[in-house]
Amino acid sequence: MTKNVYSFGNGTADGDGKMKDTLGGKGAGLAEMCRAKLPVPPGFTISTQVCNIYFDNKFTVPAEIDAQMMDALKKLEGRMGQKLGDTSNPLLVSVRSGAKFSMPGMMDTILNLGLNDETVKAVVAKSNNPRFAYDCYRRFLQMYGNVVLEVPKHDFDEVFDGQKKKAKAKLDTDLTAEDLQQVIEGYKKLVQKKTGKPFPQDALAQLTGARDAVFGSWFNNRAKHYRKMNQIPDDLGTAVNVQAMVFGNLGETSATGVGFTRNPATGEKAFYGEFLENAQGEDVVAGIRTPHPISDLEKWNPAVYNQLKEITTSLENHYRDIQDFEFTIQDGTLYMLQTRNGKRTGPAAVRIAVEMVKEGLISKEEAILRVDPQQLDQLLHPVLDPKSKKELILLAKGLPASPGASVGMIAFTAEAAVIASKNGPVVLVRKETQPDDIQGMEVAKGILTSRGGMTSHAAVVCRGMGTPCVAGAESVTVAEHKKLVSVTVGGKLITLKEGDWLSLDGSTGEVFAGKANTIDADPSSGVLKSFMEWADEFRGKFGVRANADIPRDAKVARKFGAEGIGLCRTEHMFFAEDRIEFMQAMILARDEKSRRKALLKLLPMQKKDFAGLFTAMNGFPVVIRTLDPPLHEFLPKREDLMVDVAILPYADIKKKRELVAKYVKFGAEVKNLKTVIPELLKRVEELHEFNPMLGHRGCRLGVTYPEITEMQARAIFEAVVQVAKKGIKVIPEVMIPLIGGVKELENQKKIVVDVANEILGKAGLKDLKYMVGTMIEIPRAALTADEVAKEAEFFSFGTNDLTQTSMGLSRDDYTKFSQEYQDKKIFPADPFAVLDQEGVGILVKMAVDLGRKTNPKLEIGICGEHGGEPSSVQFCYRVGMDYVSCSPFRVPIARLAAAQAAISGDKTEVSRTA
Amino acid sequence: MTKNVYSFGNGTADGDGKMKDTLGGKGAGLAEMCRAKLPVPPGFTISTQVCNIYFDNKFTVPAEIDAQMMDALKKLEGRMGQKLGDTSNPLLVSVRSGAKFSMPGMMDTILNLGLNDETVKAVVAKSNNPRFAYDCYRRFLQMYGNVVLEVPKHDFDEVFDGQKKKAKAKLDTDLTAEDLQQVIEGYKKLVQKKTGKPFPQDALAQLTGARDAVFGSWFNNRAKHYRKMNQIPDDLGTAVNVQAMVFGNLGETSATGVGFTRNPATGEKAFYGEFLENAQGEDVVAGIRTPHPISDLEKWNPAVYNQLKEITTSLENHYRDIQDFEFTIQDGTLYMLQTRNGKRTGPAAVRIAVEMVKEGLISKEEAILRVDPQQLDQLLHPVLDPKSKKELILLAKGLPASPGASVGMIAFTAEAAVIASKNGPVVLVRKETQPDDIQGMEVAKGILTSRGGMTSHAAVVCRGMGTPCVAGAESVTVAEHKKLVSVTVGGKLITLKEGDWLSLDGSTGEVFAGKANTIDADPSSGVLKSFMEWADEFRGKFGVRANADIPRDAKVARKFGAEGIGLCRTEHMFFAEDRIEFMQAMILARDEKSRRKALLKLLPMQKKDFAGLFTAMNGFPVVIRTLDPPLHEFLPKREDLMVDVAILPYADIKKKRELVAKYVKFGAEVKNLKTVIPELLKRVEELHEFNPMLGHRGCRLGVTYPEITEMQARAIFEAVVQVAKKGIKVIPEVMIPLIGGVKELENQKKIVVDVANEILGKAGLKDLKYMVGTMIEIPRAALTADEVAKEAEFFSFGTNDLTQTSMGLSRDDYTKFSQEYQDKKIFPADPFAVLDQEGVGILVKMAVDLGRKTNPKLEIGICGEHGGEPSSVQFCYRVGMDYVSCSPFRVPIARLAAAQAAISGDKTEVSRTA
Repeated sequence: MTKNVYSFGNGTADGDGKMKDTLGGKGAGLAEMCRAKLPVPPGFTISTQVCNIYFDNKFTVPAEIDAQMMDALKKLEGRMGQKLGDTSNPLLVSVRSGAKFSMPGMMDTILNLGLNDETVKAVVAKSNNPRFAYDCYRRFLQMYGNVVLEVPKHDFDEVFDGQKKKAKAKLDTDLTAEDLQQVIEGYKKLVQKKTGKPFPQDALAQLTGARDAVFGSWFNNRAKHYRKMNQIPDDLGTAVNVQAMVFGNLGETSATGVGFTRNPATGEKAFYGEFLENAQGEDVVAGIRTPHPISDLEKWNPAVYNQLKEITTSLENHYRDIQDFEFTIQDGTLYMLQTRNGKRTGPAAVRIAVEMVKEGLISKEEAILRVDPQQLDQLLHPVLDPKSKKELILLAKGLPASPGASVGMIAFTAEAAVIASKNGPVVLVRKETQPDDIQGMEVAKGILTSRGGMTSHAAVVCRGMGTPCVAGAESVTVAEHKKLVSVTVGGKLITLKEGDWLSLDGSTGEVFAGKANTIDADPSSGVLKSFMEWADEFRGKFGVRANADIPRDAKVARKFGAEGIGLCRTEHMFFAEDRIEFMQAMILARDEKSRRKALLKLLPMQKKDFAGLFTAMNGFPVVIRTLDPPLHEFLPKREDLMVDVAILPYADIKKKRELVAKYVKFGAEVKNLKTVIPELLKRVEELHEFNPMLGHRGCRLGVTYPEITEMQARAIFEAVVQVAKKGIKVIPEVMIPLIGGVKELENQKKIVVDVANEILGKAGLKDLKYMVGTMIEIPRAALTADEVAKEAEFFSFGTNDLTQTSMGLSRDDYTKFSQEYQDKKIFPADPFAVLDQEGVGILVKMAVDLGRKTNPKLEIGICGEHGGEPSSVQFCYRVGMDYVSCSPFRVPIARLAAAQAAISGDKTEVSRTA
Repeated sequence: MTKNVYSFGNGTADGDGKMKDTLGGKGAGLAEMCRAKLPVPPGFTISTQVCNIYFDNKFTVPAEIDAQMMDALKKLEGRMGQKLGDTSNPLLVSVRSGAKFSMPGMMDTILNLGLNDETVKAVVAKSNNPRFAYDCYRRFLQMYGNVVLEVPKHDFDEVFDGQKKKAKAKLDTDLTAEDLQQVIEGYKKLVQKKTGKPFPQDALAQLTGARDAVFGSWFNNRAKHYRKMNQIPDDLGTAVNVQAMVFGNLGETSATGVGFTRNPATGEKAFYGEFLENAQGEDVVAGIRTPHPISDLEKWNPAVYNQLKEITTSLENHYRDIQDFEFTIQDGTLYMLQTRNGKRTGPAAVRIAVEMVKEGLISKEEAILRVDPQQLDQLLHPVLDPKSKKELILLAKGLPASPGASVGMIAFTAEAAVIASKNGPVVLVRKETQPDDIQGMEVAKGILTSRGGMTSHAAVVCRGMGTPCVAGAESVTVAEHKKLVSVTVGGKLITLKEGDWLSLDGSTGEVFAGKANTIDADPSSGVLKSFMEWADEFRGKFGVRANADIPRDAKVARKFGAEGIGLCRTEHMFFAEDRIEFMQAMILARDEKSRRKALLKLLPMQKKDFAGLFTAMNGFPVVIRTLDPPLHEFLPKREDLMVDVAILPYADIKKKRELVAKYVKFGAEVKNLKTVIPELLKRVEELHEFNPMLGHRGCRLGVTYPEITEMQARAIFEAVVQVAKKGIKVIPEVMIPLIGGVKELENQKKIVVDVANEILGKAGLKDLKYMVGTMIEIPRAALTADEVAKEAEFFSFGTNDLTQTSMGLSRDDYTKFSQEYQDKKIFPADPFAVLDQEGVGILVKMAVDLGRKTNPKLEIGICGEHGGEPSSVQFCYRVGMDYVSCSPFRVPIARLAAAQAAISGDKTEVSRTA
């Protein structure tokens, strides 16, 4: 029979640290620590497989697994010399979730299990501390009542607060043992009332109930949402860890804490963490009381402090990664409850990786693989402009919980944040965040909390998401129900309301009233520089280019390490204020002659832009795509014109003047509106398309209006000549969009080559190398890539359109059902964000292979947005492309992803930072 | 060096009848007839390859080919004992085009070449017939002047008519030799004036000029258009045949004629054709004089008649096909000028094929391969309702030139026909048609001419296109310039004008004033029945189903031999007047409950339709597709609503009442218009899509609104039960549209299977076999077909959408540039009519192979419109599909195409009827 339950304790363990798939992260860590003879309370882990069995088996655990659990329980009871439910020496246990990948706060935990009306008396007797015993019992009643029996938390709070009021207690700790007994009675009545049954007194029933609730929590909404955000598969399941209780709340010699071997926000090598005396674990992370920094532990109990430091250092050396640990000190004795590789911010990830290489702890390859490329984004975020900082009022300084600058309008609830985020950037301001807030946190540009520490919910989640966060800004008063936040600065009360602007610096903890300016990050300095240099070494010849349409973006791209421009969308130039009128004139032209006249006006403008791009990219290639969008995109909307034509007969002079203003560039005057607007509508009707995505665009425009391609080629090569004559190295690549087969490419290529040869020939630059190639963004082009490659000097995969056509899915429209498709697991991820390797990827691979077959020299890249998404970049590397191209800010991400792909070789997935 | 010029004559020939690729049809026929020792004037053929060389070589023929031509000319001169340009015994030649596939009247011909001011005198002397000699010369001047020198024809006509007037001649033949000399002078002056040069007197220059003009005519507009219509590749080229002249216009013992060995309109085995005494060949086919039936030749010259009959019968036996021949009788001696396999109507093709099998001339396989499947369409056309015929006035009886009934509005010019055809069916009425009329002929539903015979331009072209035609209705006066057609019936003058209705019976030659009813063809009787039975024998297990949405169409489909329904589009049912309101209620429903309420109203209607289909298809499968189109298609148009909302503030009571009427089914009253219309617009805006083709449709609707799929499954299986209980054999196949991968199919299949099992179980029909399968119409589904086939019991290729997505081409929008794409050779044919085997076909083949790999029992068919297009059907057969499905009227075509594919095996193309 399959082994489903793994015991650990007393220096041995059935499992080990490598068994994360089976034991989850926490269970594997506990097993490994036991094997390393560290002080770990004994227990057992029910494997992640059982979680799937539980769901497949109508929410029950089969008897044979129950039997394995009973054996493990017996072993645990033996090790502890205690017995679950025993009325003289009862075993108390914690029951915790633990998935392969850490999902902080997402699933349920139950402490002090095994307590009931009888066993609590034994604990009273044994501890000689009735207050402790009843506090444990009331906590257990509340946790179990809420998690397993599903009685709302606030009902318990009501009972508890009632008792506090009755006892005139200010703090929880002011309640006496007797008060707590009243609370216990109140809780039990509450459970009876809400569930119709008394609270389960049978300890074994408690255990199975808690276990099943932990399994069940795998599919609670916030866990599902977290997994979706972090692309964690639903079928991994969670393990359940049952462990003998140790108590940090046994009195003033007890404490509980969490920590990191290095600073998870900055990466600095410093012992780091927090603890609370006389508390149970959840108190620290829940953010209810503000804990002490771990350095204070040294004063509080130096022996324990040193032991903890020694243990965690050895754990770091053992795991060769930053450790995130939990510990409890029970009456002066240290117990390790958990260790795992610590989550960290992007800056911390890079710094830790670089420093660990320097410390000889890991290799450069490992360092590169340690950083999730997406995390680099955090290093590339803007920071607050120091000038703005001086001008704005500094409201408070909280904990720098997640780095980066964030400027937005205040929202006080997750719901409000979601709504407001549609109109602009939002900063979510809360006393403390809860797992329920996750959707609001996701849309927020930054988060400010007035309570909680560096390991509070807000801090942990924000670092994971790369959202700037200032936590525990305790001088700030957040009145969520009144939708006000206030703080006294220099004796003056300042109050901000919902919608007011707020600026945060997540790297310093500063909070400013008002809207600060931000400054772009500098990716070319510091540890990041070394790190990226290593990445580039491994990446080798695999190139990273940027998509940039204007010289400004091209310069940014160079700064981020782009080795050329992979896509310049020439039409973006046409939308500019000073150009669109010529573009419109060109479209409205009724014959080639007047079309050419309008094009002649656009030529010098395009030429200037291209010259700027070539100059910025001195020595690097620049891929310029000929006109792509359908022409009607440059004209007024058909439905607007229809409305204006319809109301024209009713229009008074005021309305007419409005219309004249609207259509003045099409020659409108008050007296000719009745001809100008309908005529414009007529042309727009002619251009109207039912499915513009599949319509008259891309090379189809160039085929029907060869003069457009000709003008663009002229602008490109005149710019080439102009720039090359200044001694700048120009490498132009002209790209034809939307071909369905080789014939369209032939047609357009001829126009480009004729113009190029004429212009270069005249300028005496006959030997200047240029290329003509094509987008591969239509399935037919991919399917016939062998033919296409006979004419193309390069391919560039337009995976945005290739995804749309291959999946028959309009990017603009599929939002109507995308949520449902992801919820129902039809799409594992948004196919426009993460390349669909199983479907669209087949076509990409086919096209690469077919293209290279007939043209081994073919240069192949990608310029769809997937070019900056790590798993897609790795796919591009694996199928043998020469480069990826992405937005300038994502260039470092692509460089790292490519390096990881190079290191991992043919392995399908680079390991996630667990 | 490549041989480019092939001599023939005196019972030998360089080439033979199989060399159509090189010699063209005419040249190959001449060579073959020479080899068979038939009386053929000697000559030579310049190969089709030279045509391509001519175009590639800047419109010139290289010197080495000129040299080959000179050698062949010498040989010809030797055989004739004459010399080109010789002033005592000049050789006269004809210069004719001749492509691989016959293109009647599309390219240019020049007769009597070699005549000039000197040689004509020799002809006068030799023939002792000055009138003949000058008639030849003036014809040559005119043909050469027009074709080679490009002087407009009407300029020559003006000179000619001027002379006729001057000479008071009524007929051309009334002109004397002197008159003709005047004409010649006039012509020469005309040429001098128009071209600035005298008419070329050098016979060799005439020859090369004529040759080049024939090559050039390969790319004249009507030839290009004809090739496009008939899918003849542009790069085949035409050969040029230079042949010694023989003269049918040498006097009353001379004649010229054309004929067929069987009736090309009906297929009847009867010597068939026409001749004109004292005429040159072009006079017969040009339709200027109405010729005599060939049977009259027996009286006119019985010896020649018998010789001709003997020769043509042996030619038919030799070629084992109906022969279309041209002959000239020069002074009582018969010469054969051409023989080729005759073009024939669909009914004739079938009858000839069947009868030739019975005569033992060809095998059944050959018979099947002989008929172009498209031609069957002509047998399936409706005929005029005899009742209508009795009620309408019979205007005239002309020649039954091309079968079928045709009812339309009169147009007098090709241009008018093209315009009028946009508003309804058109009958083109002309004195006689010209090659220039081709575009008008293409759009016309029928053609009536007052002049010309069974081999006139109108007759030949109409038979080719399958358009009904009545030719040579001489009692009818067509006044094209006045746009009137008049005829005296029973002493009464009846005049019809442009736009009046006319009914033609192309099978009888009857012409009726007014709009007749038509009756559907009966494909189940006559020779067609035997023929289709043979086809079905060869087709074997490869099935042909029909696309039918309603029971009426299903019955028609059965009549045409459909073996099931391959596609029932359930949404067509929803558009019906009595249903759309429930559909709209369903769409406007804000929650599942009200949606289900509306669906419940639709259920019995769908059930009734399905029951009708199952009943009609007793024992044959019925594929029912779940809802496919986007929901907004069922609601008012967004732009209309926007306009109505915009004018609402200005609307007076009349306008308001109009709006109420328009929106009454959405609850509109005068007082609530201001809420009803904007609210409807709001919902329509929500449903609005930028690219509906790629939007929320197909299975995506079923995934988001499972209750729709559930209702449809319920309607299907309740109908199954109802019909099955009557003892009818029901084979339901439920088809899920627009899947991109297996997961959508899983999702929808589960709904269908659950409903099916529930309903069949309750009815005690658990063992009734049904299937659930899917459309393959999205590239991703084809690419992942191995996965899809694990869930699918059948695939049906939706090649309409698959073409749209694979080519990134909207069927509704690509008409904007389709012409340009075909002209520029980017598309060899309309990809929505003829499956793009080189592109989309790759995906189809992949999907078939992948699907069968994981599910060898997978049933595979096609239900896109390509399922009725012969070359596409043959492709489907070759890739291993089980069946095709097409519109009911195309079922016989598909059956025949499939049989041809079966016979041809793996050959890529079935030979075109040449």
